[in-house]
Amino acid sequence: MIGPGTFPVEPWHVRETGLDLTLLGQTESVFALSNGHIGLRGNLDEGEPHGMPGTYLNSFYEDRPLPYAEAGYGYPEVGQAVVNVTNGKLVRLFVDDEPFDVRYGELVSHERVLDLRAGTLTRSAEWVSPAGKRVRVRSTRLVSFVQRAVAAVEYVVEAVGEPARLTLQSELVANEAMPAQRADPRVAAALTSPLVAVERDSEGTSATLVHRTRSSGLQMAAGMDHVLEADGRVTHETRTSEDWARSTFVVTAEPGRPVRLVKHLAYGWSAQRSHPALRDQVAGALSGARYTGWEGLLREQRQYLDRFWDAADVQVDGDAEVQQAVRFALFHVLQAGARSEGRGIPGKGLTGPGYDGHIFWDTEAYVLPVLTYTAPDAARDALRWRWSTVDHARSRAKELGLRGAAFPWRTIRGEECSGYWPAGTAAFHVNADVAAAVERYRVVTGDDSLEQDGGLDLLVETARLWMSLGHHDADGAWHVAGVTGPDEYSAVVDDNVFTNLAAAHNLSAAAAAVRRQQDRARDLGVDLEEAATWVDAAKAVHVPYDERLRVHQQHEGFTRLPEWDFAHRRDYPLMLHAPYFDLYRRQVCKQADLGMALFWFGDRFSEEDIARDVDYYERRTVRDSSLSACVQAVLAARVGHLDLAHDYTYEAASVDLRDLHHNTADGLHIASLAGTWMALVQGFGGLRDTSGELTLDPALPHGISRLRFSVRWHGCTLRVTVHHDEVEYEVHDGPGASVRLRHAGEHVTVSTGAPVRRPVRRRTPLLPRPQQPPGREPAHRAPAVS
Amino acid sequence: MIGPGTFPVEPWHVRETGLDLTLLGQTESVFALSNGHIGLRGNLDEGEPHGMPGTYLNSFYEDRPLPYAEAGYGYPEVGQAVVNVTNGKLVRLFVDDEPFDVRYGELVSHERVLDLRAGTLTRSAEWVSPAGKRVRVRSTRLVSFVQRAVAAVEYVVEAVGEPARLTLQSELVANEAMPAQRADPRVAAALTSPLVAVERDSEGTSATLVHRTRSSGLQMAAGMDHVLEADGRVTHETRTSEDWARSTFVVTAEPGRPVRLVKHLAYGWSAQRSHPALRDQVAGALSGARYTGWEGLLREQRQYLDRFWDAADVQVDGDAEVQQAVRFALFHVLQAGARSEGRGIPGKGLTGPGYDGHIFWDTEAYVLPVLTYTAPDAARDALRWRWSTVDHARSRAKELGLRGAAFPWRTIRGEECSGYWPAGTAAFHVNADVAAAVERYRVVTGDDSLEQDGGLDLLVETARLWMSLGHHDADGAWHVAGVTGPDEYSAVVDDNVFTNLAAAHNLSAAAAAVRRQQDRARDLGVDLEEAATWVDAAKAVHVPYDERLRVHQQHEGFTRLPEWDFAHRRDYPLMLHAPYFDLYRRQVCKQADLGMALFWFGDRFSEEDIARDVDYYERRTVRDSSLSACVQAVLAARVGHLDLAHDYTYEAASVDLRDLHHNTADGLHIASLAGTWMALVQGFGGLRDTSGELTLDPALPHGISRLRFSVRWHGCTLRVTVHHDEVEYEVHDGPGASVRLRHAGEHVTVSTGAPVRRPVRRRTPLLPRPQQPPGREPAHRAPAVS
Repeated sequence: MIGPGTFPVEPWHVRETGLDLTLLGQTESVFALSNGHIGLRGNLDEGEPHGMPGTYLNSFYEDRPLPYAEAGYGYPEVGQAVVNVTNGKLVRLFVDDEPFDVRYGELVSHERVLDLRAGTLTRSAEWVSPAGKRVRVRSTRLVSFVQRAVAAVEYVVEAVGEPARLTLQSELVANEAMPAQRADPRVAAALTSPLVAVERDSEGTSATLVHRTRSSGLQMAAGMDHVLEADGRVTHETRTSEDWARSTFVVTAEPGRPVRLVKHLAYGWSAQRSHPALRDQVAGALSGARYTGWEGLLREQRQYLDRFWDAADVQVDGDAEVQQAVRFALFHVLQAGARSEGRGIPGKGLTGPGYDGHIFWDTEAYVLPVLTYTAPDAARDALRWRWSTVDHARSRAKELGLRGAAFPWRTIRGEECSGYWPAGTAAFHVNADVAAAVERYRVVTGDDSLEQDGGLDLLVETARLWMSLGHHDADGAWHVAGVTGPDEYSAVVDDNVFTNLAAAHNLSAAAAAVRRQQDRARDLGVDLEEAATWVDAAKAVHVPYDERLRVHQQHEGFTRLPEWDFAHRRDYPLMLHAPYFDLYRRQVCKQADLGMALFWFGDRFSEEDIARDVDYYERRTVRDSSLSACVQAVLAARVGHLDLAHDYTYEAASVDLRDLHHNTADGLHIASLAGTWMALVQGFGGLRDTSGELTLDPALPHGISRLRFSVRWHGCTLRVTVHHDEVEYEVHDGPGASVRLRHAGEHVTVSTGAPVRRPVRRRTPLLPRPQQPPGREPAHRAPAVS
Repeated sequence: MIGPGTFPVEPWHVRETGLDLTLLGQTESVFALSNGHIGLRGNLDEGEPHGMPGTYLNSFYEDRPLPYAEAGYGYPEVGQAVVNVTNGKLVRLFVDDEPFDVRYGELVSHERVLDLRAGTLTRSAEWVSPAGKRVRVRSTRLVSFVQRAVAAVEYVVEAVGEPARLTLQSELVANEAMPAQRADPRVAAALTSPLVAVERDSEGTSATLVHRTRSSGLQMAAGMDHVLEADGRVTHETRTSEDWARSTFVVTAEPGRPVRLVKHLAYGWSAQRSHPALRDQVAGALSGARYTGWEGLLREQRQYLDRFWDAADVQVDGDAEVQQAVRFALFHVLQAGARSEGRGIPGKGLTGPGYDGHIFWDTEAYVLPVLTYTAPDAARDALRWRWSTVDHARSRAKELGLRGAAFPWRTIRGEECSGYWPAGTAAFHVNADVAAAVERYRVVTGDDSLEQDGGLDLLVETARLWMSLGHHDADGAWHVAGVTGPDEYSAVVDDNVFTNLAAAHNLSAAAAAVRRQQDRARDLGVDLEEAATWVDAAKAVHVPYDERLRVHQQHEGFTRLPEWDFAHRRDYPLMLHAPYFDLYRRQVCKQADLGMALFWFGDRFSEEDIARDVDYYERRTVRDSSLSACVQAVLAARVGHLDLAHDYTYEAASVDLRDLHHNTADGLHIASLAGTWMALVQGFGGLRDTSGELTLDPALPHGISRLRFSVRWHGCTLRVTVHHDEVEYEVHDGPGASVRLRHAGEHVTVSTGAPVRRPVRRRTPLLPRPQQPPGREPAHRAPAVS
């Protein structure tokens, strides 16, 4: 846990005012910088102490074996794990002859600030060496959103009181020794020394190291060069070895005359290009960075973020904590997805090695809804990546005896890397989640280029998968047997409601796409007859319902299972204290599952059903997954429990700023961070789009006095300002721009210069505020967390 | 596959008349000798060529890691694997200076005979060396049923035509190099060099090697000594090394003057005793063997087997193949269980390393019914072994959050060694199978000593397990959710009929035992109130039934699942060509499962239900498990499809003599061999005991003219002779001995000297002979197998 005072509440910064070495792993994740291509954990400049060193390149991975005590047909035997690549953020400092290390001497002050508008991490320290020499160090680090291959560090040292001889060693280090990993199965397996030296080069104060991975055979290059500003004599030398390059600068600093080093970093990797090509690519990127200069990089960074915040910012008046948290969340979602460009968005972004750096359904189901409404180009790129892996998905479907394409539960490059099929391969809903993201992109942006460039094919391939997974019973109802839904405390069940409805949505969307693009569909061998069978199956989809309890069953038979014995068994997360067999056989949910069905396909349920279902599953959902609180926030808002929704919003927002799941050290929970936006915009804003139109139906909890957010819709930006009684809709996209939406059931058109105000629909909950399982009440706002 | 001509049909022998090197692995299993304590694969005396060398000591194992690509709570991390111990059956021969190796020179003739009455394996070969020297070799091997620690080899060589210098090397070899294992997941993982030398000793022509396992820390000793009979000068020397001991004899053999070597072998192992104690134990066993001498060992062996066959033989007139097969089967069942004495009976006995040498439910559900009726002391010993592991079972239950004791799905020493929980830990029915075996032993023998010595406790502990596994629904019905039944093509299901009924049987039996032994029960903390809850649950047990199809559901929802696409997918065994996820979600059964419920608990079903259920599941059961054919034989006989039952009997009987599952090389299928007896005695004999009384209801198929078998009942031996029209019941246990039984519903008492004859009840099948899945018709009698 991270205590409530660790990061003071500020609207645009995450500031750490001291340095708690026991929280280094967590703060390295919180302070990670990334542009979706390069990721730098927030390690101290001097490298030590650390929680875990981390430098990542999106999709740069090493193979790892997937062992089985008892093997089976179709089990993947080779997994993929993100690699800690050459560390370029290292700047070591010697004051006279003593290394600057916060564990020695006296650390007079230490502050780190993540600036969400500047896109920088700044560190300020004042330190007295064991020999009594005092210095001030201030470093600023950025990973450029504009120059995708570039990162940079500005490192400023000032002697205080008396002169000091300063030695700065700026390094590139490959194959860093990694700390032992914990036994928690969620933590990725360690990969020791995965990089093999290929080439090294240095000239002046610049150096480049080229490496390749031992097994997967990917090549990468890291380069650095430097600008040193100092009074007086400076010497420098640069040396390289197989696994390191080091530029050393020695200077005598007079008090009040800071020494300033700017370090430019560039990274590149490829599975195909030669190492000379990679080496030159990195040199080119360094040249560009030098040309731009440190101030230029800072300026570009801020301009990029200004544009982002203009479209994406969410203002939460009345709750400063959630205000800070949602901006922190959006910043990291942007970092994860901004420049991934043809690569996936991993569950932890590029902030840590958790989950082996894999991409899950989180991307399409949690991250892309946010990006589609705030940075649609990034959403489109992520879906293009997914489509680029279709050959693996086709092979996998064939291997499994299925038709179409079966996208992996977890992967880096596209191959299934799941080593436990009941919670991996069997979770076929990932295919419908991908299809839904494709359809959402088209509906929200009005851009059909994606559909024409792979999107139709993807819808067709997933529709065919569902047709081979589902079957009709004797009464004509369509079922999907033996698959796993979102809730990982159930597995291999029949007629999971979310899966069934998502499959039906996939089938309907595919059929509609075929009707729109009949010529292209014919090229894929799809005719209207085949599409008609999809529509038939979708219409006949079975949704299990318990007539006696008057609630839907998460899956067939769920409400007849024994209950979890919360009176005696409440060590959370349950999965670390109970076997799957017992979790699977009881009415206990790791995360929202039927709730996902109510969230995505709410139009298919009556308001009373939603209220009763929410009440039933609230009592049985332990939120051992970080994917749950945000969905429960949206549903609580939907059924009128606005304060409960607020609590869940706070929980989703705090998952990493408070380390609620005790594993922030392994990387941030990007989906839960995206969920903060979902909770605010889809919960309190009441945003929905499944009917194909933009629907809003806002309402605020007591603790939020005003909520303002923007969404992109068909190229326009709709600004929504919600008060307790009234909501205002605005468009500022120039003459003629307008957005048509449905407010609380009423059709409304909003045009530039013609804002629309409407009263907020009052919510009256049908049922009292539900209880959660003991010990699993949502993390409270203004909490007394110790 | 083993072709039909490989072993000529003979009533009391399994004879191989040539030597097919491609079948060496299979014949080594078929010709394996064992007494339940020591097991020797039928390797050639000279060791090479081989399929797989194999010498085993019951329960002597090495640890092996159980790795997981994704770990989970409660997964066993250390497995156990049977070890190929020091090979003492090696006798190498040099003729002049050329080694006798069937791959070189000319093998004029080669025959091996397993004599089922003598309990020996005899090999006769005539060979011409590459240099033209001709010899006859005849070796006979036995593992003594009477002297549990002893095996012996008689090795006779005769020069033909001209004299030859013969060198015989008789050896003990530890850590033999093993061939690479196949990729089939059923094959045990290889264990290389598991033995560490502890001590060695030799004197004269005797030698002893003591080793311990590297990780599990068990110690074993193997000793040999020799008697050589030869004319003329003999020299001998004995040398030892860490991993081998070798006695060499050199002699010049004149034509017509055979040279005869008798090699005595002794083995011992212990987890607790010191290595001097083990060394002396082996020396003592060798002394005893020498004292008895070769002819004495042969005589004891035959006497032991005469007694066994007198009580256990099954005569099958009219079908010579099944006649041979059932004796082969009973011989190997006896070998597996005869002298295990405090150790378990592994699925493959001591005939090969398959399944890591593990013990499964096969023991209690397939092997012990046979032993209970034919060699009840062996059955009692096996159940005492199971009870001796209860502390592991109690710990396992606790770890899983359950009460009572949870016996392992697979183990050697008692710890759960299953690395795939859906088909391991979740198969809780093993506990009810163990309880049923305890209850069966009491019912059949009338001996309550087992119940008083652990049996009550076992029934109580398993009953408590079931009470913590099951639950009542709102209507009061009792369910068991989320467990796996016998069919391994379904897993983690609700209300598996066999599991539910077996659990109910366990609960009822435990309650009855508590009523019988109230004082002892009180010591266990059980009162009549607790026992009453068991009876209530047992009475309320839910048995899912499909009203529309009018068949029982193997588990809740089974009959609503999609069918297997046999038109396109019929590569057997299916599990090597399809993922579990697809097998689990379809109406396809690896093996009889609902059938096991009909078999064991037939009294609970109407005759019409049984007929309809058999018909339904016959069409969906692919028999990819060797545990199925025998059960299907019993059921087919029950519903009047006597010729189908005969076909299944043949298949169960042929599983290893024909290598029907293509893995006989890894060891025999002891349970299927036991199933041959079940098919004949429980199928055609109509033997049942679940009501607590001995019930018989015989009927023969066209292909069997007379069936005679004996069963032990309450200390008497009932001989049953079945003709097509009439059955005769006899008792020969002296004055006053009598057996009360129910013949086809009628109570009958049979006494010594007063045989009873009754007409056989005619069977009229309710439904036509059912179809099996394509390509899965039972292996036919008099087959045209190529």
